[in-house]
Amino acid sequence: MPPKFDDEGTDRKLCIIVSKGTMEWATASMVLGNAATSEGIELHVFFTFWGFDAIIDKRMDKLKVSPVANPSMKIPGTEVGMANMLAALPGMTAFASSMMNKEMDKLQVPPHREFMQMVHDSGAKFWACRLTFDMMENTMGLTKDDLWEGVEDIISANDFMELSEGAQIIFI
Amino acid sequence: MPPKFDDEGTDRKLCIIVSKGTMEWATASMVLGNAATSEGIELHVFFTFWGFDAIIDKRMDKLKVSPVANPSMKIPGTEVGMANMLAALPGMTAFASSMMNKEMDKLQVPPHREFMQMVHDSGAKFWACRLTFDMMENTMGLTKDDLWEGVEDIISANDFMELSEGAQIIFI
Amino acid sequence: MPPKFDDEGTDRKLCIIVSKGTMEWATASMVLGNAATSEGIELHVFFTFWGFDAIIDKRMDKLKVSPVANPSMKIPGTEVGMANMLAALPGMTAFASSMMNKEMDKLQVPPHREFMQMVHDSGAKFWACRLTFDMMENTMGLTKDDLWEGVEDIISANDFMELSEGAQIIFI
Repeated sequence: MPPKFDDEGTDRKLCIIVSKGTMEWATASMVLGNAATSEGIELHVFFTFWGFDAIIDKRMDKLKVSPVANPSMKIPGTEVGMANMLAALPGMTAFASSMMNKEMDKLQVPPHREFMQMVHDSGAKFWACRLTFDMMENTMGLTKDDLWEGVEDIISANDFMELSEGAQIIFI
Repeated sequence: MPPKFDDEGTDRKLCIIVSKGTMEWATASMVLGNAATSEGIELHVFFTFWGFDAIIDKRMDKLKVSPVANPSMKIPGTEVGMANMLAALPGMTAFASSMMNKEMDKLQVPPHREFMQMVHDSGAKFWACRLTFDMMENTMGLTKDDLWEGVEDIISANDFMELSEGAQIIFI
Repeated sequence: MPPKFDDEGTDRKLCIIVSKGTMEWATASMVLGNAATSEGIELHVFFTFWGFDAIIDKRMDKLKVSPVANPSMKIPGTEVGMANMLAALPGMTAFASSMMNKEMDKLQVPPHREFMQMVHDSGAKFWACRLTFDMMENTMGLTKDDLWEGVEDIISANDFMELSEGAQIIFI
């Protein structure tokens, strides 16, 4: 599908920087991104730091939400916050993540990879941060082939600055 | 009090997305929001994800700050970071929250609900995210009546995109 | 070195709000800030809340990354996330921080203080939040002399609103 925004004559542009790789922030990025492209807004999504989890092929289907250090996360069915000691128990992260996945499914929010594809198909461009890539190449042997195929290119922070000229910027 | 920004002929607009519900981020939102409206800037605050704690009536008076996973939080009176194990002890979250409340009170920062009312009265509009609302309706039976009365409406991410045209956007 | 942006006739302006004081977010701020000034963009960096760690002289050389509550942080050499219980063990924060420091050094990313100086020398202005300063003055006796010498001034949120007129804003 050709980019919607090219056809609509709008010059509004949005850049989303995804710096965290947990399920809630990956989802938030795509919810906002999807809204943007469907409104005919030119969209660029720049993945950096922990946000790489959302574009590393073997990680992106296993994003987790973390209940630790999040007083907003309550014990299901109650108003009692998961105490930090409880939330840190082995298994709680997996439990909370699977719960959130189920709830999002009920509301027709697609799983992360599918959601990315959908926003990509509506004309958004996805970019990977050069510095993060280089660091992960050194520490874990990451290669370009390990990235999701929808990633346009690996670009520097300077490239991002040029890309984001005149754009609204959302740092997630 | 009528919206200040209508009278001043400025067309500057700010949208704050509140995605976290802990005390420090709810406060940060209102500090920036209050500064914006007092400068005659049109302000929209959009609450989403964990940010709902800040607009759920029975939660908004009990916001907590979390010392876990925050190396910036020191043991009072020292330069020693609260070790994660210590910070995770039952009671530490409550202790840190009450301490921060007291300090903010000394500096005339109003409690969260009052602060929200103040910013609301100066002309800001508060919006709740449809997707988050629907998820909380499913999981905990949230109804519109459970939201703080200052919330204008429940709107979609698309609505937010339309609302934020031409605005500066701050994602907290 | 005189501000680059004055010479280039661009009127693009970027404001970065640094609200967190851990190593990854301090670094992210300077990576983006450095890219901005090197592109001739006027840059203002506003430090607030936990972000003060990045400008308090005796803290800024000891910034830490926190592995707790961050499912993106894997056990080195594996795809296994550091379980929260493991990450919370005494020593893990220091270990992860020293590891990240070493990796950044390999990629020629300067240590935090040096990086700040570099961005400062390229024309950026650094500002400290009045409310945060007042709170830390009350709780830990912070004085203006405790702040890094590159900080221009202590300013209010209202001052920041005036400063950021017409700017892109990134809240980190």
